Amino acid sequence: MFTNIKIPQTSEEFNALVTSIEAIEGYRRPIGFAIGRADLGELNKDKVLQMSFPVVNWGNNFGSAAIFTAALQASGVEVNSTGSEFVADVNSNFIEVALKMFVPYLDEAKGNEHKNVQILKHIKAEILRTINNSPKAVCIEFTTKPSDNEEFVKGMQKEVDEKLQKYKIVFLYEDAPVESVETAYLKLYALSLGKVPIRSLNLNGVFGILPNVAWSGNIPYELDWLRENEISLKLDNDYPNIDSVDKFPRYLQHIIPADNTRILEASKVRMGAQLAAGTTVMPGASYINFNAGTLGPVMVEGRISSSAIVGAGSDIGGGASILGVLSGTDGNPISIGENCLLGANSVTGIPLGDACIVDAGVTILAGTKVLMDEDEKAKISLINPTWVPMQVDLCNGSDLQGLNGLHFRQDSTTGEMIVRRSTREVVLNEDLH
Amino acid sequence: MFTNIKIPQTSEEFNALVTSIEAIEGYRRPIGFAIGRADLGELNKDKVLQMSFPVVNWGNNFGSAAIFTAALQASGVEVNSTGSEFVADVNSNFIEVALKMFVPYLDEAKGNEHKNVQILKHIKAEILRTINNSPKAVCIEFTTKPSDNEEFVKGMQKEVDEKLQKYKIVFLYEDAPVESVETAYLKLYALSLGKVPIRSLNLNGVFGILPNVAWSGNIPYELDWLRENEISLKLDNDYPNIDSVDKFPRYLQHIIPADNTRILEASKVRMGAQLAAGTTVMPGASYINFNAGTLGPVMVEGRISSSAIVGAGSDIGGGASILGVLSGTDGNPISIGENCLLGANSVTGIPLGDACIVDAGVTILAGTKVLMDEDEKAKISLINPTWVPMQVDLCNGSDLQGLNGLHFRQDSTTGEMIVRRSTREVVLNEDLH
Amino acid sequence: MFTNIKIPQTSEEFNALVTSIEAIEGYRRPIGFAIGRADLGELNKDKVLQMSFPVVNWGNNFGSAAIFTAALQASGVEVNSTGSEFVADVNSNFIEVALKMFVPYLDEAKGNEHKNVQILKHIKAEILRTINNSPKAVCIEFTTKPSDNEEFVKGMQKEVDEKLQKYKIVFLYEDAPVESVETAYLKLYALSLGKVPIRSLNLNGVFGILPNVAWSGNIPYELDWLRENEISLKLDNDYPNIDSVDKFPRYLQHIIPADNTRILEASKVRMGAQLAAGTTVMPGASYINFNAGTLGPVMVEGRISSSAIVGAGSDIGGGASILGVLSGTDGNPISIGENCLLGANSVTGIPLGDACIVDAGVTILAGTKVLMDEDEKAKISLINPTWVPMQVDLCNGSDLQGLNGLHFRQDSTTGEMIVRRSTREVVLNEDLH
Repeated sequence: MFTNIKIPQTSEEFNALVTSIEAIEGYRRPIGFAIGRADLGELNKDKVLQMSFPVVNWGNNFGSAAIFTAALQASGVEVNSTGSEFVADVNSNFIEVALKMFVPYLDEAKGNEHKNVQILKHIKAEILRTINNSPKAVCIEFTTKPSDNEEFVKGMQKEVDEKLQKYKIVFLYEDAPVESVETAYLKLYALSLGKVPIRSLNLNGVFGILPNVAWSGNIPYELDWLRENEISLKLDNDYPNIDSVDKFPRYLQHIIPADNTRILEASKVRMGAQLAAGTTVMPGASYINFNAGTLGPVMVEGRISSSAIVGAGSDIGGGASILGVLSGTDGNPISIGENCLLGANSVTGIPLGDACIVDAGVTILAGTKVLMDEDEKAKISLINPTWVPMQVDLCNGSDLQGLNGLHFRQDSTTGEMIVRRSTREVVLNEDLH
Repeated sequence: MFTNIKIPQTSEEFNALVTSIEAIEGYRRPIGFAIGRADLGELNKDKVLQMSFPVVNWGNNFGSAAIFTAALQASGVEVNSTGSEFVADVNSNFIEVALKMFVPYLDEAKGNEHKNVQILKHIKAEILRTINNSPKAVCIEFTTKPSDNEEFVKGMQKEVDEKLQKYKIVFLYEDAPVESVETAYLKLYALSLGKVPIRSLNLNGVFGILPNVAWSGNIPYELDWLRENEISLKLDNDYPNIDSVDKFPRYLQHIIPADNTRILEASKVRMGAQLAAGTTVMPGASYINFNAGTLGPVMVEGRISSSAIVGAGSDIGGGASILGVLSGTDGNPISIGENCLLGANSVTGIPLGDACIVDAGVTILAGTKVLMDEDEKAKISLINPTWVPMQVDLCNGSDLQGLNGLHFRQDSTTGEMIVRRSTREVVLNEDLH
Repeated sequence: MFTNIKIPQTSEEFNALVTSIEAIEGYRRPIGFAIGRADLGELNKDKVLQMSFPVVNWGNNFGSAAIFTAALQASGVEVNSTGSEFVADVNSNFIEVALKMFVPYLDEAKGNEHKNVQILKHIKAEILRTINNSPKAVCIEFTTKPSDNEEFVKGMQKEVDEKLQKYKIVFLYEDAPVESVETAYLKLYALSLGKVPIRSLNLNGVFGILPNVAWSGNIPYELDWLRENEISLKLDNDYPNIDSVDKFPRYLQHIIPADNTRILEASKVRMGAQLAAGTTVMPGASYINFNAGTLGPVMVEGRISSSAIVGAGSDIGGGASILGVLSGTDGNPISIGENCLLGANSVTGIPLGDACIVDAGVTILAGTKVLMDEDEKAKISLINPTWVPMQVDLCNGSDLQGLNGLHFRQDSTTGEMIVRRSTREVVLNEDLH
């Protein structure tokens, strides 16, 4: 398959080519795909420590996926799409072939247009620089024998392809457990770029697949490499400045946030977190883990643990904790609705609807006994039409999960935990009620 | 105005010159002024992303202000002092003229002496380097025609002035809402250098004026520039290591703290915060926002929100929150007195006098009901002579604001919030009572 | 002493040499010793701002200690072992002599073998580079007069020894208060490398000895140097990016953690902390101070203050505070046992045994009144065989310190603080009961 491809000269021919590729038996559209640059190990030179993707295709650009697949096959790489994912090194033939297939778009590929093609052009330029800067290129000018020339081309291609090994192309066909560092990063990018909802991807295996490395700025170092070179690095004052030791990089190493988003300290947001435009993350006690984040403008001065989601207009006060599935909530992921206020140093262990308040210093967990009197039940019913209030006044935190307009406070004269209708406005979705 | 200036040769002549400048009609002494270096945008080359001021004049050095004003005018820059602020690019004529007026102090200008003059000398040296390193300078040596020379001087001046555009001079005449990035930084510097008390400056407009940028070390990047260059930056491994995305830089990017001040993590103190000598900021859950800070040696392991002030000898425990006007306190800015102790994970939403204790884990807000029995009322009266105790035992937190010697605790057998005379010594100011 | 040393050619001769050195009257085995590189001041060129040790010997390698001592003496440095510590500059003669004594091990010294010898070899290589790169070395080739040669050797040695002044050798003979920056670092390394238990070293004097400096990456700057150069640094855009101002560096500036240890933000762990393999430190509100840390895999999302120790399998929840001796606990250092859970935003001011739980948001201090009913007393007795329960139900937190299997919670219907048998498994050590 993928032989005798006719180079398209027009968009129509390009589309026809894509159609013909997609029609080939066994061809499979990927959920997501991307070309990226790998940081490879110093000790284990084939080990991918980190991937950087300038462009992530997810649920779109299927034409490019088809071209990339065909170009890989034409360059001698057998694309196996029967598994959940496929990863290959980029090679010079692939770049050459793929660029030919993209001929109708070569000129337009700049700015925001045809970013996949821009990547190919950028790598092509690097190939040319490599060839031109090679000492072999100088020598070949002084010889005319065709055999020399052939030899040269072969040698150069090997040199170039070694250099291109840092570029990887990855296809995700199925949202299965992660099998490679490349796919792990592709999924983290999909989350952090907002291509998929938080909690929607299968991230099983990600902790096992990602290597634990020492990060110095954007550069990952193998811990063993530091150990083997500790004497010379320290004596020569070359020891790298290590910012963290972790399997995950930081969100800001890979993601450019929206113009009105603010992250006052990069360590506070892990790669794989998702921040809606207008979110502010303060540097005090805040943290947003991977597969967690915000759905709209949110002020974050507390912790949004893995799997927790916060709605637009909410305020997570200084030191406030939203418990995550990795610890604390027995696997029940917490969503906080819109326009909520979690007070300073509060702890929230149950999902909340819209317009809820947890007072500063208050802890509300699934098992916390909370008092709600008849008056408040009536008021809260109004904004939770489908809710059936309990017969008794004392309930568990878990009985209240997901309700709108709750205000949790501790009566400072009795120590009782009570819940009342909050003072925040609840906008009921008429379609739902 | 500002014509026919006689170059002063002595301090007396210098003073006479200043007097004559200040006597000119329309001349206005600035509240503060400074020459600084701007970081300009890569995309928007005229856009100031950040200002760095090596010297800030505030309520002093009016002689230099007069000279700078006169030298600007002489260099062709019309200084408009009718508004609240005035900003201009530095140019080579300005440097030339100003240095001539400072002749009596040129030699003394080193170390801690005449820092404004040192700045002029430093820029003058850069001008000379620019001229000497110019290829044009080499060419001119081979020609003798006066016209060539004139041409050269003109060309060089243009080249030099373009280079000097990064240097800005800013005068603040009135403490009005901020109108430029340069003035915003001048005010943040005034606060962080302790030239003015916390909460004393008009900072309206500062959020609107300051651009939201990506900070890599001391370098601000436009987010759009990162977007436009994402492909090449990532593929070429040139993507900058982003520390934060914010409108404000960090305090330590601009301010050199006192010898006995410690800030264990730069992200924990925003530019515009004020830290008295001897303050220690730990890296756990602490944060000091702009227009907030300490008046003496304070141990900070918690959050001092915008507009909050903490007195000498106080201890803000791990995770303790002092609420700020931007959220939580309905605009009532909180001052904490001297020698207070805010326990770990406590929350304080009311102003406190001296020698107060808020127990670890305790939250005291304006609306918190607190019990104070007759005995404690008597003891607390002793150290708050002007205070009239309430008739009832149960009061609101707001009723107690600003009192000395309070100890807030929760009775762990009843859950009641109670207040007692603290064990800390209160030193009454005899002049006040 | 230390004269007429015969160069050993075999391990046996080496051992005999060591024995003979150790037999010399007045010779004293050090507790710990190391050769490291100093960062020296820019203003105070003899002032040590920081030490980096690639290898720390502690309670072992006494042969190397003997050789180093003898080589120092032979190079003209009088080693004074009568005090608690001794520090000297490394010089070229010392390197020369020491390498000769290590002849039997020179070839083996690579990888993990003979790291002290590797250090000598590395410095020797630097000496040779210095000589070969010296302009004098080129000149000497053109002269044959022996006197020139002698002159050259003398000049070169001076040049080399000045360069070697950054290398220091330090011996600790006695665990007394710290007297030098070199020893302070040696002790902090011993703690952070796990060579000694937490709280086992005399760290008195360390705050006085360590200079407060501005850290930019791994580079310490004197604050006065920044002040003196502020004008040129800021105008020329050379101002260093300051990460912190502190007496201590960060753990990750010096220590390579175990493969399964994760520290998500370097500022969160101070040099001198000890982290057992498998410990994870999250970037939210966590902090581990010097002379504090973990004894096994621990999840750290809260604060482990100076002198606090946490056992294997425990979980320090988000924002949880363990009070330290520097503030809060009146000098009673806190140990947390194994398999404990300190909930989010809890505060613990008493030592705990194994399998304890402090609920999220709960504060337990020495003076906190806690209710334990008869049923729970019986259950808790079972796992604390030597414990004699109180006669009354209400006790102080301090009465319970160190007990296993406690679960501290606040009854949210009454505000009472109560303690019950935790649901966590306690594995009693049969040898102790």
